[in-house]
Amino acid sequence: MDLHILDHRLRVTSISKTGLEQYTHPLIKLIFLRNRTRCKFFSLTETPENYTVVLDEEGFKELQPSAHLQVEGSTWLPLNVVSNGNASSSSQAVGVTKIAKSVIAPLAEQHVSVFMLSTYQTDFILVSESGVSLPLYYVCVCVCVCSVPHATVHPVLIPENQFCVMSLDPDTLPAIATTLIDVLFYSNSPKEGASVDQDMEYIKFFSFSLIDGYVSLVMDTEAQRQFPTDLLFTSSSGELWRMVRIGGQPLGFDECGIVAQISQPLADSDISAYYISTFSFDHALVSPFFSLFDTQNILALSIS
Amino acid sequence: MDLHILDHRLRVTSISKTGLEQYTHPLIKLIFLRNRTRCKFFSLTETPENYTVVLDEEGFKELQPSAHLQVEGSTWLPLNVVSNGNASSSSQAVGVTKIAKSVIAPLAEQHVSVFMLSTYQTDFILVSESGVSLPLYYVCVCVCVCSVPHATVHPVLIPENQFCVMSLDPDTLPAIATTLIDVLFYSNSPKEGASVDQDMEYIKFFSFSLIDGYVSLVMDTEAQRQFPTDLLFTSSSGELWRMVRIGGQPLGFDECGIVAQISQPLADSDISAYYISTFSFDHALVSPFFSLFDTQNILALSIS
Repeated sequence: MDLHILDHRLRVTSISKTGLEQYTHPLIKLIFLRNRTRCKFFSLTETPENYTVVLDEEGFKELQPSAHLQVEGSTWLPLNVVSNGNASSSSQAVGVTKIAKSVIAPLAEQHVSVFMLSTYQTDFILVSESGVSLPLYYVCVCVCVCSVPHATVHPVLIPENQFCVMSLDPDTLPAIATTLIDVLFYSNSPKEGASVDQDMEYIKFFSFSLIDGYVSLVMDTEAQRQFPTDLLFTSSSGELWRMVRIGGQPLGFDECGIVAQISQPLADSDISAYYISTFSFDHALVSPFFSLFDTQNILALSIS
Repeated sequence: MDLHILDHRLRVTSISKTGLEQYTHPLIKLIFLRNRTRCKFFSLTETPENYTVVLDEEGFKELQPSAHLQVEGSTWLPLNVVSNGNASSSSQAVGVTKIAKSVIAPLAEQHVSVFMLSTYQTDFILVSESGVSLPLYYVCVCVCVCSVPHATVHPVLIPENQFCVMSLDPDTLPAIATTLIDVLFYSNSPKEGASVDQDMEYIKFFSFSLIDGYVSLVMDTEAQRQFPTDLLFTSSSGELWRMVRIGGQPLGFDECGIVAQISQPLADSDISAYYISTFSFDHALVSPFFSLFDTQNILALSIS
């Protein structure tokens, strides 16, 4: 298992819900018109609060500054674990679980801030160039396993909708363009301004990434029904995931250890999980092969 | 031949070249997401000056006012000629030529302002509810055949690029979505701010309309090459048209008779022609079966 530092310099940004319309033009270019941009790393995740956009410097140039765009101050570098075939062969788990002990825990011990971005293809661990000294008003996930005894217990939210992690041939992206545009840019109207309710049973969450030519999509089953069934694929047909959303209030920059806290116990129990950080909250997607009751207990044990 | 007043109340608007980005969100909705809008009449025409958008009240609601949006003050009603099978059977011509004598000339004689919008399917003759008493700063085409002796001689421009008038099954619109989006919203960058040169050999002109479920596209052969060949169709394969653009300066509201002046001599010679009015200029698409030399002579005779 090798840890690679990829050749991208990334910005972590947030577009407000009401600002999306204004950014439709550059976002559609970045998603669909590969010939018109040199952006090679693009990720867009909708949550109830905002749209988290992670992209390289070439892509970032396309986003005009405005009151609707928040930009995390530092540059982030993506790390990527490439399995060399014989390492961690004992685990059947996928996602962050695979790298919890080998990468996430050691980074946390070194007080390195991480921003996780799991995709269908791999898990990107973004580390800030500026380390943990980030301005107060920016949110990132700081890992500090050493201080676990003082770690805050974050409320977790487990919405009822189920998610799938999918991909498609980038050459067939045009075939789902209008559906994807509809879901990303026009499906928000009825729920515009919905508050983030701890008791909410349904969470609006949709993630699209186009990284080095690979497409990854994370969506719930309701969104999935809108797409043609023959183009999107997942590793095992019909594989669904439950979301554990971490943080009742936006996660502050000065707190550490969240990804490690979550991934460590999942790894101990060999529970597969994807992990997607956004501007305000963290989201773990947990294997349905483990009951949610058990998951909650494990998470409760780990963070209390 | 029956003249029908269709059940649409239309607005004629213009979006500036630099304002297009800001209107990408509503325009993409109007073009591609039929389920999200009740707009039934939508037409978007790019010229070197601006984007002319003609749409019904439902569609007009989607366009937020801004300095980039000019709105013609009055409401326009579309007239449509439905051939009843035996009328004008002597003419093989298509487009405005068919209706020059039966509709356009009589309307002009009645001093009724018209704004022409030819499509693949039919020719819409838009008439202003408020007649010819339009505010000075709005441009429309006023017809006043009675005053032909005093009519201004407008310079005409005949660019070298050739155009096709096409259609496609509206259900296959998603299949050309990314190409259409690219051509409409992203192909302008290198020519941004290009002046309207009387000697220009190439004119940027692209028209898309979605009216009562029917799609019509007018584009030059360069744009056509970007689209898949199997989806777009035209009445006769490879049929190309030359453009006669009318007006060296934007056509003023207080001048009359332009459409009639152009269509009358074309009809006399049975030359097929489409006719597309935009916010600033008029554009006749003339059948290639007639040489341009002859066309120029006929037009020169008619307007001098």
